[in-house]
Amino acid sequence: MNYRLTIQYDGTEFAGWQAQENRRTVQGELTRALSLLEGNEVVVHGAGRTDAGVHAEAQVASAHLKREMEPERLAAALNGNLARDLRVIEVQRAPEDFHARYNARGKTYCYRVFNEHYSSPFWSRYALHEARSLDLGVMREASRLFVGRHDWTAFSAAQSDVKTRVRELTELEITEHYSARGRGRLITVRISAEGFLRYMVRSIAGALLATGRGEIDPAALRRAIETGGRPHAVATAPAHGLTLVEVRY
Amino acid sequence: MNYRLTIQYDGTEFAGWQAQENRRTVQGELTRALSLLEGNEVVVHGAGRTDAGVHAEAQVASAHLKREMEPERLAAALNGNLARDLRVIEVQRAPEDFHARYNARGKTYCYRVFNEHYSSPFWSRYALHEARSLDLGVMREASRLFVGRHDWTAFSAAQSDVKTRVRELTELEITEHYSARGRGRLITVRISAEGFLRYMVRSIAGALLATGRGEIDPAALRRAIETGGRPHAVATAPAHGLTLVEVRY
Repeated sequence: MNYRLTIQYDGTEFAGWQAQENRRTVQGELTRALSLLEGNEVVVHGAGRTDAGVHAEAQVASAHLKREMEPERLAAALNGNLARDLRVIEVQRAPEDFHARYNARGKTYCYRVFNEHYSSPFWSRYALHEARSLDLGVMREASRLFVGRHDWTAFSAAQSDVKTRVRELTELEITEHYSARGRGRLITVRISAEGFLRYMVRSIAGALLATGRGEIDPAALRRAIETGGRPHAVATAPAHGLTLVEVRY
Repeated sequence: MNYRLTIQYDGTEFAGWQAQENRRTVQGELTRALSLLEGNEVVVHGAGRTDAGVHAEAQVASAHLKREMEPERLAAALNGNLARDLRVIEVQRAPEDFHARYNARGKTYCYRVFNEHYSSPFWSRYALHEARSLDLGVMREASRLFVGRHDWTAFSAAQSDVKTRVRELTELEITEHYSARGRGRLITVRISAEGFLRYMVRSIAGALLATGRGEIDPAALRRAIETGGRPHAVATAPAHGLTLVEVRY
C-alpha cells in the first residue's frame, strides 16, 4: 500500500531533509518512525530535498508500507513517535506508482524578511532580519526579470551534477504585511517553478535583497541571467528565511 | 533621566518577568544589560509581571539612568547585550515620575489556541494545542458573562495578598483565523482590563475552553462568578498560550 504524507517542520534543529549518518534529518526521522511501525526498513521519498535550516509548511513524502492502516491512525501513530518540530498533518492513500518527487509538477517557496531596525523574537527562526531599508519598488521591477524560462547558472550552487540548469520560473511575487506578532514589516518573496536547482531560491532572494538595498541595479541582474556570471554583490540568502509552502501534482 | 522601554520576548526560556536568584528572568536580563551600561545597579520596573512561559509583544518597562543616551543608541546598546529571544523594540524619554506599573491604565492579553487534530511546529511555542472540537458560539455566549466589574475569586490564583479581587474586564473577544504557517484554525481570546489578578487570564481562558468542549455550561460559569467558587471542570490554561500584547497609559 502506497501512502502520501503531508509534513510540516521547523527546520531549525534539522540538518536538512536528506538522511545522513549521525545527523538529525527530516527523512531520517520519518524513516525511523515509519520503520518502527512497519517492523522493517521503509524507504521514504520527499518532494523537495530542503537544506539544513529550511522549513516546510507542506512538504510531501511518499512511502510503501506492507501494513495497511487507516490514514488517520497512521498519522497519529507517526506523530506519537516524532518530536514536536516535525508533524505529519495529513496522510492519504496514493496510487501504487505515486512518487513524491518524480510526480511533482511544481513547488512554491516563500522567502521571508523581517525589515525593522530591531529583530523579532517571534520571527528570528523563520525570517531573515534586515535592518537596512529595502526599496520594494525596485525589487519588484527586478523580480520581473526572473520570471520565465532561464538558465540559472548565476543563481544556483556552483557544484551540481544536473544535466541542464534551465528551469521555468512561473511566479515571483513580493508582498509586505505588518506582522502583529513581530510588530513590524514582514516582506515575503514567493517563488514558484516546475523545479528548482540547489540554492536557487536563496540566490534569487539574495539578488533581490541586494537590489532593494541599492547595491546592484536590475540591469546587472539581467546581464547575470544572460551570461551565467554571478555578480559579487549577490550573496545566497541564509537558510532560515526559507520555507517550502506548496508542492503541486 | 527616566526611560520607557517597549519590550518583546518569547517567554519559553524565561522563568517569568520577576527577577529571581539563579533563574533566567526578563527583569533580571534587562537589569543586567542596563546596569552594565550605567556602571551601577539599575532598578527596572515592568508593567506586567508575566509568569514563566508567558510571552510579550509589547511589555513596557521604566528605568532611571544617570547616563544620558539617545533613545535609539540605548536600544541598540541593550539589544547588543541581550539574547535574541528578548528585544527592546523602542526606547523613549519619559517624564521623571513615569512608572511602568503604577501608571498603567489597562492591559490586553491574547490567549491563543491551535485547534486541529495535529499540533503545529510553528505554533507549539505560542498557542495551546486543542485537538477536540470547540464550539465558538457557546464560547462567545459565555464570554459575555465575564465582561464588566466582577469579583474574580473563582478565576484567579488561590493564594494572593491583594486587598480586593474586584476588577473591571473591559473587553473579551474571541476570533478565529486560518493560519497559513500552521495550515490550521487558530482561535484567539483577547482580554482587556484595567488590571489583572494572577492567573486571571489563564483561568478565564480555561473556563472558556471547557465551555467550548461542552464540559461546563454558561450557567455554571455565571454561578462561579457570583459565588467565587471554582467549578471542577475549569483548569488554568497553560502559560505558553498567553501573550501580553498591549499596555495602555
